[in-house]
Amino acid sequence: MAADPRFFRAGAALTLAEAAAAAGGELVGGDPAQRVTGVGPLHEAGPDAVSFLDNRRYLPQLAGTKAAAVVIAKDFAARVPEDVAAIVTANPYLGFGRVARALFPAPAPRPGIHPTAVVDASATVGEGVEIGPYAVVEAGAEIGAGCVIGPHAVVGAGVVLGEGCRIGAHASLSHCVAGRLVVLHPGARVGQEGFGFAVTPEGRFETMPQLGRVLLGDAVEVGANACIDRGSQGDTVLGAGTRLDNLVQIGHNVRTGRACVLVSQVGVSGSTTLGDGVQMGGQAGTTGHIAIGDRAQIAAQSGVMSDVAAGEVVGGSPAWPLRETLRAFATLRKLAAKPATRG
Amino acid sequence: MAADPRFFRAGAALTLAEAAAAAGGELVGGDPAQRVTGVGPLHEAGPDAVSFLDNRRYLPQLAGTKAAAVVIAKDFAARVPEDVAAIVTANPYLGFGRVARALFPAPAPRPGIHPTAVVDASATVGEGVEIGPYAVVEAGAEIGAGCVIGPHAVVGAGVVLGEGCRIGAHASLSHCVAGRLVVLHPGARVGQEGFGFAVTPEGRFETMPQLGRVLLGDAVEVGANACIDRGSQGDTVLGAGTRLDNLVQIGHNVRTGRACVLVSQVGVSGSTTLGDGVQMGGQAGTTGHIAIGDRAQIAAQSGVMSDVAAGEVVGGSPAWPLRETLRAFATLRKLAAKPATRG
Amino acid sequence: MAADPRFFRAGAALTLAEAAAAAGGELVGGDPAQRVTGVGPLHEAGPDAVSFLDNRRYLPQLAGTKAAAVVIAKDFAARVPEDVAAIVTANPYLGFGRVARALFPAPAPRPGIHPTAVVDASATVGEGVEIGPYAVVEAGAEIGAGCVIGPHAVVGAGVVLGEGCRIGAHASLSHCVAGRLVVLHPGARVGQEGFGFAVTPEGRFETMPQLGRVLLGDAVEVGANACIDRGSQGDTVLGAGTRLDNLVQIGHNVRTGRACVLVSQVGVSGSTTLGDGVQMGGQAGTTGHIAIGDRAQIAAQSGVMSDVAAGEVVGGSPAWPLRETLRAFATLRKLAAKPATRG
Repeated sequence: MAADPRFFRAGAALTLAEAAAAAGGELVGGDPAQRVTGVGPLHEAGPDAVSFLDNRRYLPQLAGTKAAAVVIAKDFAARVPEDVAAIVTANPYLGFGRVARALFPAPAPRPGIHPTAVVDASATVGEGVEIGPYAVVEAGAEIGAGCVIGPHAVVGAGVVLGEGCRIGAHASLSHCVAGRLVVLHPGARVGQEGFGFAVTPEGRFETMPQLGRVLLGDAVEVGANACIDRGSQGDTVLGAGTRLDNLVQIGHNVRTGRACVLVSQVGVSGSTTLGDGVQMGGQAGTTGHIAIGDRAQIAAQSGVMSDVAAGEVVGGSPAWPLRETLRAFATLRKLAAKPATRG
Repeated sequence: MAADPRFFRAGAALTLAEAAAAAGGELVGGDPAQRVTGVGPLHEAGPDAVSFLDNRRYLPQLAGTKAAAVVIAKDFAARVPEDVAAIVTANPYLGFGRVARALFPAPAPRPGIHPTAVVDASATVGEGVEIGPYAVVEAGAEIGAGCVIGPHAVVGAGVVLGEGCRIGAHASLSHCVAGRLVVLHPGARVGQEGFGFAVTPEGRFETMPQLGRVLLGDAVEVGANACIDRGSQGDTVLGAGTRLDNLVQIGHNVRTGRACVLVSQVGVSGSTTLGDGVQMGGQAGTTGHIAIGDRAQIAAQSGVMSDVAAGEVVGGSPAWPLRETLRAFATLRKLAAKPATRG
Repeated sequence: MAADPRFFRAGAALTLAEAAAAAGGELVGGDPAQRVTGVGPLHEAGPDAVSFLDNRRYLPQLAGTKAAAVVIAKDFAARVPEDVAAIVTANPYLGFGRVARALFPAPAPRPGIHPTAVVDASATVGEGVEIGPYAVVEAGAEIGAGCVIGPHAVVGAGVVLGEGCRIGAHASLSHCVAGRLVVLHPGARVGQEGFGFAVTPEGRFETMPQLGRVLLGDAVEVGANACIDRGSQGDTVLGAGTRLDNLVQIGHNVRTGRACVLVSQVGVSGSTTLGDGVQMGGQAGTTGHIAIGDRAQIAAQSGVMSDVAAGEVVGGSPAWPLRETLRAFATLRKLAAKPATRG
């Protein structure tokens, strides 16, 4: 299956030799001169397409694939069918992605400001920026060269975007300083007031002034409809390369290191800090004011109530070391299987 | 209580005989010629309104209701107060809905393109389409007859909408082909890039080209601020009639069958497949690359880590058969009640 | 650290005496005439700034703070370093907030309707209202005096906003009557159709007319991308002062009392009622049609399946009294630590 031309403009076809080169892999079997024009999953890819295998789960599909070539690790190369070429590489997923990118180059910005966009006279807009219909760029904002601002996006007063950022449709930013190559997907909310209030003696809630910012490192990506509140006095900080999936919540004053990965619907409460390379599975959450160490891994749906050491792997709600949690549930299951009277 | 005329335009009044006919039920007691103009819950409905009972929990309210008539199942009909009519039907909730719809017909589209809407010259717009203020319809999009595109909605390049779709305010679509009568509620995000990236040998994240689409079957409904990512190579597919509540997350390459029901804040991870009629309770989640069988039921807040057979009912995180999970927690509770020393 | 002047306009400096007065506290140590211009956390605040201590966790930072003054409770005042002034008050967090507000007054509305805003001729707009670029105010809407309507916000037909409401960028309202000083953060969705449908004998889903409203009490705040569905026949009601964090879901016909606090990603299912002062931690959820009593506390990630009595503290999924849940998990952990054969 080639990508739908309604939505994706194909570049030039590649020979298998070129595809192997793009993948940084070795072509085994197949005709180096054979042309491929698309990519697809094993069960859908046709003789004009390249596929990949990165998960044993799909070995059965490998046996039946009609792909021209499969990007694959050395260990599985022997399992590729007779009439299918193998592109052997240590990192099939990365290699496959590079073949796909070579076949379907990312659309370049179309420099220019749509006539319906409202760009304040005091805003500065860099070289080659594309600003879409009904986008709003407020006073004093700075848009770096090569940025693409989607339809209806709102870049608030004073916001700074580095070079090559992509801001999706309906995304909003305020009180934010972003580095280069930052990506906000549609509907992402960055820089709004955090959830901070004090209780008066009369029992009324009084909003605490939220006087901090959001600092986004280079190449940070923020998923659709995800939310990042600005700091209350200090800043909310996402380290370079950190990626948030859709509907993730980042409370005020949260700080993450570089290259953290927060899967969809994760929630990080205010003033919690994450080290470098922390990974949180979908729907996991943390309480506020705790510290998660470098490269810690938080299983999906975990509820982290206290500090997690560097490299630790935790799960469950409340979260314990994942091994203990799994053992505990196995034990519980065994107990529950016994006659209730023995419970 | 009649619906607030600020927001709802009432149609003609109905007689109880007409109401019973609309409900597909039998009028028992009451004057067939009595007129009703509204609907309401048992405790609020007045003598000009129709109510219903569908949940034993509300039997106490039935006793005190002032409604003109109550749409109700045979078994409970005897519990309707003396001076209140009963409209007896096998499906009171459905019957009540049809009475309500007869009293308050859905507003028809107001055909026309608002002068502030930006519709690309290459887009095709069907008969009787309503396009609201500041809506954006990009190049090559196809809007079927009778569609309503809300204020600020963005229909991306090449997107196809079948007849009679309703796109809410601020919703965005890209890389999507939708059938007939599809509904997106406000802020829904459809077709954006999925959460896919490879790690380079240097430890940098490299985005995988997301070259698939989102295919929405007829009458699919997507809740407010819900997100559906497009496929990475294959497509993300929601079967006809499937309904997503607000803030639901659908990862790339997910495929559902027909008439699935995903309650608010559910998350389905990438490449997981759901059969027909699967139901997931609020805040439940699944890991990626698994298969949920037809008519399986996933309890609220469950965490599904492996395949679920057709018709199975699971709960807990990690999810087990719901009966076992409930028994396990009952056992645990009993154990915890004992002196800790006995633990 | 003073607040970034890119984003925050400072008012006049304060003397420590004035700061103490604003905090409603007593100045202990330090020069009453010393001027302060900013606020910050203990580890960042410099000699021109005021900080606060409200959490023992930060006592180590207190020892090293360079702040001019620290707003602090009596018990900890002795721990303030020699050369730092203490502003002693019973409620340091509130006091600190008032100092911050005195230094950084909230920006006043800039009355006027942006030329790109679309305001229906039949809408009424009060004194001193600010309506931003591309905002849409539909037929019959009433905007109270001093409201600020953000860029791209959509105020639906007939919606009523009391005085001094702030509607964030891209927020949408329909079928809603709001009191005074209501705040919607960016992307909040209020008043859309609830998740209600009946199943026809043929197994098709048929949408139930959603004929209720959303009633928001005075000073209700709704977080970014949070969703509140309108009632199906009755209304969805949030009591005065109630605050929803980002990405919270409120189902149709939910009713809350006054001053409830729902932390990020909480979900409250349809027709559930909350009393006054109910607090729900992040990612907690409730099933539908239950009652949560006044001042009940629901721990983060809890799953509440049945009524909760006034003042009760529950946790876990399914939720039990929090003490029992914690004891149960402690017991389980002990069991799991034993040799599996003993399980």
